[in-house]
Amino acid sequence: MSSTSPAPRGQIMAGEMAEQPAVLRRLLDEGAPHIRAVAREIAARRPRFVLLTARGTSDNAALYAKYLLEIRLGLPCGLASMSTTTAYGARPDLTDVLMITVSQSGGSPDLVASTRAAREAGAITLAVTNNASSPLAGVSEYHVDILAGPEKALPATKTYTASLLALYLFVEGLRGGTGEDARVLPALAGRILDRGEEVRALAARYRFAERMVITSRGYGYPTAKEAALKLMETSYIPALSYSGADLLHGPLAMVDNVSPVIAIVTDGRGGEALQPVLDRLRDRGADLVVVGPKPQVDAASAGFALPTSGVPEELQPILEILPLQLLAYEVTLARGQDPDAPRALAKVTETR
Amino acid sequence: MSSTSPAPRGQIMAGEMAEQPAVLRRLLDEGAPHIRAVAREIAARRPRFVLLTARGTSDNAALYAKYLLEIRLGLPCGLASMSTTTAYGARPDLTDVLMITVSQSGGSPDLVASTRAAREAGAITLAVTNNASSPLAGVSEYHVDILAGPEKALPATKTYTASLLALYLFVEGLRGGTGEDARVLPALAGRILDRGEEVRALAARYRFAERMVITSRGYGYPTAKEAALKLMETSYIPALSYSGADLLHGPLAMVDNVSPVIAIVTDGRGGEALQPVLDRLRDRGADLVVVGPKPQVDAASAGFALPTSGVPEELQPILEILPLQLLAYEVTLARGQDPDAPRALAKVTETR
Repeated sequence: MSSTSPAPRGQIMAGEMAEQPAVLRRLLDEGAPHIRAVAREIAARRPRFVLLTARGTSDNAALYAKYLLEIRLGLPCGLASMSTTTAYGARPDLTDVLMITVSQSGGSPDLVASTRAAREAGAITLAVTNNASSPLAGVSEYHVDILAGPEKALPATKTYTASLLALYLFVEGLRGGTGEDARVLPALAGRILDRGEEVRALAARYRFAERMVITSRGYGYPTAKEAALKLMETSYIPALSYSGADLLHGPLAMVDNVSPVIAIVTDGRGGEALQPVLDRLRDRGADLVVVGPKPQVDAASAGFALPTSGVPEELQPILEILPLQLLAYEVTLARGQDPDAPRALAKVTETR
Repeated sequence: MSSTSPAPRGQIMAGEMAEQPAVLRRLLDEGAPHIRAVAREIAARRPRFVLLTARGTSDNAALYAKYLLEIRLGLPCGLASMSTTTAYGARPDLTDVLMITVSQSGGSPDLVASTRAAREAGAITLAVTNNASSPLAGVSEYHVDILAGPEKALPATKTYTASLLALYLFVEGLRGGTGEDARVLPALAGRILDRGEEVRALAARYRFAERMVITSRGYGYPTAKEAALKLMETSYIPALSYSGADLLHGPLAMVDNVSPVIAIVTDGRGGEALQPVLDRLRDRGADLVVVGPKPQVDAASAGFALPTSGVPEELQPILEILPLQLLAYEVTLARGQDPDAPRALAKVTETR
C-alpha cells in the first residue's frame, strides 16, 4: 500500500488548466501540418453541408465550429440529433455531407455508431479527438488529434481549448489559409491564467448563488454554454445559458436582482449585437458581470477584462473560456467541494 | 374610463389552452389541403438539406420538425444560428436547401432578415406562422398558416401545438402521405385538458421549488425544452432541459434530492432510449415526475398518464405538452403570479 496522501482538492483540474498555453503551442507546432493536410484533402471533395456530432463539452466545441464554418466558409451546418440514428435508425442520404464528430475520449458508443452510420450513408467523416487509438478515430475516414495529453480531472478544460484550436485550424485549412493568426494565443492564455487572484474575488460573489444566467451572441455563445456546463458540473449551481436574442424571447422574465448574469462580450460583431440585451439587463437591475474588453467590464457591475486587442473575433473564444474555467474551479472550492471529481460523473460517459 | 374590472389572473392563458382541441380540428379540416399542396410543390424541387430558423417557443416546434425530417424523410437538417447572417453577414450557398422559418407573429426582424437572405442565397423558403399578412409570410416563397386565431396571453400555448401539427402535416405531405393519423388528436387533447384537477395536485409539489430539471429523448426532447421555457417565463422557476444523453454528460452532477426532475417518456423508441437515464435518476434519489404511459408513471414518484395507445410516437409531442402547459399555469397561480403577463416580456419580441 502506498503511503502518499490524497491530492488536495482541485489539484488535478488546476494543473490541467495551467497546461493550456503549452497545449495550444504544441498543437500549433506539431499538430497544424497534419490538420492542414486533412483539410486540403477534404476541401478537394467539396462538401456542401456539414453535420457536427458531439456531447457535453465537445458539443460546445462543435457549436464553435458551426459558427466558423457558416461565417468564414459559407457552408450551411447542422448539429446532429444523435438519437435519430441510434434510437430511430434514420439513414439519411449524406452524399456531399461532411460529418465532424468531436469527442475527447473518442469512446462513447453513440458517437461511434452515429459516425459509422454516417460513413455508410455516404458522408465524409472526420473525428476530432484526444485519442488517436480510440474507436471513434478508427471508424472515421479522417482523424485529427488534439494532442492535449491525458486529461484526468472530470471537468474537461485543456481538451476544450485544444478542440477549439484544432477546429479553427481545420476550418482555416479548408479555406486554404495557414491559421497563423492563432500564434498569439499561447502567450495571451498564459497571461490570463496568471490572474487567478482576480477570479477568486469574483468567485466570492457566487458562493451562495442559487442560480445564474450566462449569455452571449455569435462567436461567444459556445463560451456561454461551456461556462454554464463547467459551473454546473463542478459547483452544482444551476446555470442557464442563452444566446442574447433567445434570452429576450422568454427567459428574461426569470432574471431579477437575485439572478446574477454573466455576459461574454466578444470584441467584434457578436459583442455589438449583444449590446441591446446588456441594456435590457441593466434596466432590470441585474447583477451583470462581463468577460470581455475593458470598457465593457467598466460599464458592468464587475468582470474580467480580456486582452482582445489584435485578436480576431473568431479566435477570442479560445481565450474567453479561461477565466470562466477558473471561476468554476474557485466557486467550487469556495463551496467546499472538489472540482476534480464531481459526484455522479464518469470521465468517459457511455451513452447509446 | 371603462368600469370593467380586470380579468382574473390567468384567464386569457386558460382560455387559449382550452381552445387547443378546436384549433387542431380546424387545422386538420381547413388547413391541411393547402399544407399538402405546398408540400407537393416543395417535394418536386427535391431539397437535399433543411435549415430551420426560429426563436423561443417556435424554436422548440422547429426542433420537432428536425426529428420528423431526419427520421421520417432521411433529410439531414440543421437549426440556423441566426446571428451568422444578421450580425456577421454570412451568405452561404443555399442551393438545394429548404429553409423553414417558424414564428407565430411572423414579425421579428431577425427572422425576416434571415429568411430574405436565405431566399437570395438560393434556398427554397417556407414560413410557418399564425399571421398570413406578416412580414415573414411576405418575404417567404411559401407560407403555411397555422390558423390558431389571435393569441393574447404572453406564454404561447395554442400556437405551439398548432405549429407542431402544421409541421407534421407538411412533413407527411413531403412523403406523399395525408397525415390521417393526426385525426385522433383533437379528441385526445380535449380529454387531457379536462384533467386540470390532477395537474393542480402536481403543481403543489413545485410551489416552493428553487429549480427543476426536465429531460426526454428523441421526439419528446422538444417537449422538454418547451416545458422548461413555459415554466420559466410564467413561474420564473429556473428550469433546465436536457436530452437524457446530454444529462449524463455533466449536468447530472447537479441533480440531487432537492432538484425535482420531470421526464417526458414517449411511448416508443425515444422512451426506451430514456430508460437508462431514468434508472440513474432513481438511483440518485431524484424526485421523478413522469409524463407518459401509465406504467412509466406508476414507476415514478408521481406523474400524469397520457393516453398514447394507438397514437404514433411522432404525434405524441402534440399531446405531451398539454399537461405541462397546465402545470406552468397552475404553478404560477400557486406562487401568486399572473401567467397572462410575465414581467419583462412583450408578445412580439423584436430581436435583430
